[in-house]
Amino acid sequence: MAEQGNGENQINASESSASGPLNMNGSSGLAPDVASPAGVTRNIGVAKGDGETSYARNSYFQARAAQELVTQIEEAVDSMRLPSGDGPLVIADLGCATGSNTLNNVDVIVNRLRRRYRQASLEEREVAVFFNDLPSNDFNSLFSLIDVDRCRGAGNSPRNYFAAGVPGCFYSRLFPRSFVNVFFSSYCLHWLSKVPDAVLDKESPAYNKDSCWIHDGPAEVFAAYREQSVKDLKDFLSFRAQELCSGGLLILLFVGRETSKEITDRGRFAYFLRLMDLTFQSLMSEGVLTEEQKNTFNIPTFTRSMQEISEIVDGVSSEFIPRRMDLVPFSHFVDNFSKDVDPKVLARKAFLMFKVTKEPLVEAHIGAALSKIFWDRCYDIYLGRSDLLQNFGAESNPEPHHQVLLVLERR
Amino acid sequence: MAEQGNGENQINASESSASGPLNMNGSSGLAPDVASPAGVTRNIGVAKGDGETSYARNSYFQARAAQELVTQIEEAVDSMRLPSGDGPLVIADLGCATGSNTLNNVDVIVNRLRRRYRQASLEEREVAVFFNDLPSNDFNSLFSLIDVDRCRGAGNSPRNYFAAGVPGCFYSRLFPRSFVNVFFSSYCLHWLSKVPDAVLDKESPAYNKDSCWIHDGPAEVFAAYREQSVKDLKDFLSFRAQELCSGGLLILLFVGRETSKEITDRGRFAYFLRLMDLTFQSLMSEGVLTEEQKNTFNIPTFTRSMQEISEIVDGVSSEFIPRRMDLVPFSHFVDNFSKDVDPKVLARKAFLMFKVTKEPLVEAHIGAALSKIFWDRCYDIYLGRSDLLQNFGAESNPEPHHQVLLVLERR
Repeated sequence: MAEQGNGENQINASESSASGPLNMNGSSGLAPDVASPAGVTRNIGVAKGDGETSYARNSYFQARAAQELVTQIEEAVDSMRLPSGDGPLVIADLGCATGSNTLNNVDVIVNRLRRRYRQASLEEREVAVFFNDLPSNDFNSLFSLIDVDRCRGAGNSPRNYFAAGVPGCFYSRLFPRSFVNVFFSSYCLHWLSKVPDAVLDKESPAYNKDSCWIHDGPAEVFAAYREQSVKDLKDFLSFRAQELCSGGLLILLFVGRETSKEITDRGRFAYFLRLMDLTFQSLMSEGVLTEEQKNTFNIPTFTRSMQEISEIVDGVSSEFIPRRMDLVPFSHFVDNFSKDVDPKVLARKAFLMFKVTKEPLVEAHIGAALSKIFWDRCYDIYLGRSDLLQNFGAESNPEPHHQVLLVLERR
Repeated sequence: MAEQGNGENQINASESSASGPLNMNGSSGLAPDVASPAGVTRNIGVAKGDGETSYARNSYFQARAAQELVTQIEEAVDSMRLPSGDGPLVIADLGCATGSNTLNNVDVIVNRLRRRYRQASLEEREVAVFFNDLPSNDFNSLFSLIDVDRCRGAGNSPRNYFAAGVPGCFYSRLFPRSFVNVFFSSYCLHWLSKVPDAVLDKESPAYNKDSCWIHDGPAEVFAAYREQSVKDLKDFLSFRAQELCSGGLLILLFVGRETSKEITDRGRFAYFLRLMDLTFQSLMSEGVLTEEQKNTFNIPTFTRSMQEISEIVDGVSSEFIPRRMDLVPFSHFVDNFSKDVDPKVLARKAFLMFKVTKEPLVEAHIGAALSKIFWDRCYDIYLGRSDLLQNFGAESNPEPHHQVLLVLERR
């Protein structure tokens, strides 16, 4: 029953792609901070429910990003050996969050797999899809979406699969051995399992008291984050190697950077983080927040370079065959998104899109009441700092962070 | 690898059990209304969260009931052929709700299965547990419990399994073919998939306008409920037959009745339902509720007799071997539960235990605001009707409803 995919060790690795040149000039000013903290072991997630400021309604960016890469994802599925046996095909979405993005991503994979079985005149297989996120994720919202869509389809919709939710951190085992045929993860793996210990250690040279990320800290902060990012990706691949069937695929989409660029190069992400630093300083100076609260807030994300990713992938070559490693610029769909949008509306949207993935971190750090004060102040500063805004999308300030598409096949 | 269980077609069917004689005399007056509407396809469930009036904190009865039957459940697991192969053992809890009951039930099964593998000197198998309930169930609360307990166990706890939530109605397909080794369902199957159509049809002789259940309606109401209950159990068994591996077990615990008793015999369940009727009448007479709202409220539960269950089980003999069919009285653990409890406290608890499974039905019918008014009024009537209270646990008013333990093995 098994059908052969592409030749072993064939890899399509590039630092640009068909979706546009690696050039952020003239883009809209939308921050490429497409991120869901699904890998983080603390009790956080994305903003719940479906209100105006919820993740479900402020994750266009994640949606557009995945849409842009549909062709590449389909090619990855086409390269896969079709699983033999008569059990269900098992697909798992790691870091699914709560919006419809995750359902659309899964549909692409399910439909393409079904198409391959039809084209090969093989009997249709049942499909089971597992949606994973942290236990604190709003699975109730996700399940209400799944149910509605499945009922609408009345058995023949493309969403005709058996669905389950899996609560847990993907930097741990989540599934039985050799259980999953395709893992998909969209905009999660740049979230680390935790803030590196040294960054929170007052005695360490990596203690990062004046900044909430790497952008303005000493070199030791970068080193500590980098070390954590290597350990986390290695752990992730080790757990998935146990859970994947032979021939199964890992399709990973996350934020990375060009090898030639420093992570601290100025970009829109750093712009927003600097706004957060200003907000912490402002509220501390007024006594609303303590110095300790300001000093110990750090965002556990790291945008790995293509070189860093390559080295980790080389280290797991006994378990995985690399199939694809592309760095795809954000510019193309950012430009699409900004057409005909009022700049003021865009500014508000950009802020909400940034806030929606950082709000749970702030809330976990200082509580819900102070978090509300924090974000109100942050928005005031955002609107008042036209000097920062002017620098927002300038050519002198190129964006080093792009999306990485990494496809690995389990030997 | 397969180990033989008990001989085929051996069935342990009785209408009493080791847990006490079939005699409700002198019991505490607690209503045996142990029920979760998990099978009902409408958008209902049990009361969410973990507050004072939540299901999680008012389901002692369900907890005690399952505890009383631990020995029987363990015997059922012991009678099972151990699955061969090296995939995970898959256990599914249908109608799991949100409390810790479901986790305790699952622990009994998982621990017993592990014990059998140890005793047979077979290699330990990984275990995957699927918790099913309606999409409207509070899976977020359930997942927070699972996570806490799994973390506590640090890999060696009895709750060391892979957990997933499955949103959906168990009167439909929920799992891939031949996917599950053990199904467990506790206090759900007496909930029907819906209120029978005829009961809501003004032109039908079964139109049940003056009562919220069978207890005071015409004979046609009983017939319509009975017909629905037969169809639902047949459907349920048909879906599970597709999902169970050969040799897999269905362990079903639900509320049924003695064959010799009428479903409308006076019991505590009918007592509480009559309170609801009085409440509807009271609020309608004041114009708070419309006549239509009163007339169209019906509770979709049916307590099947042992004879009715036997006939349905006989009808699926080509797919299932009956292993056990016991009618177990509630009295034993009701007596245990009532020891040393202040009668006033007990009365309050009994009311909350009834309310917690009916509140979502009322809320779905008349909305949250009117539902609150409804339950406040219902409690006032409850406290004021000492004549009904005096009759509550009297010998002249035996309880016809008991728990049924039905164990079927997939051929």
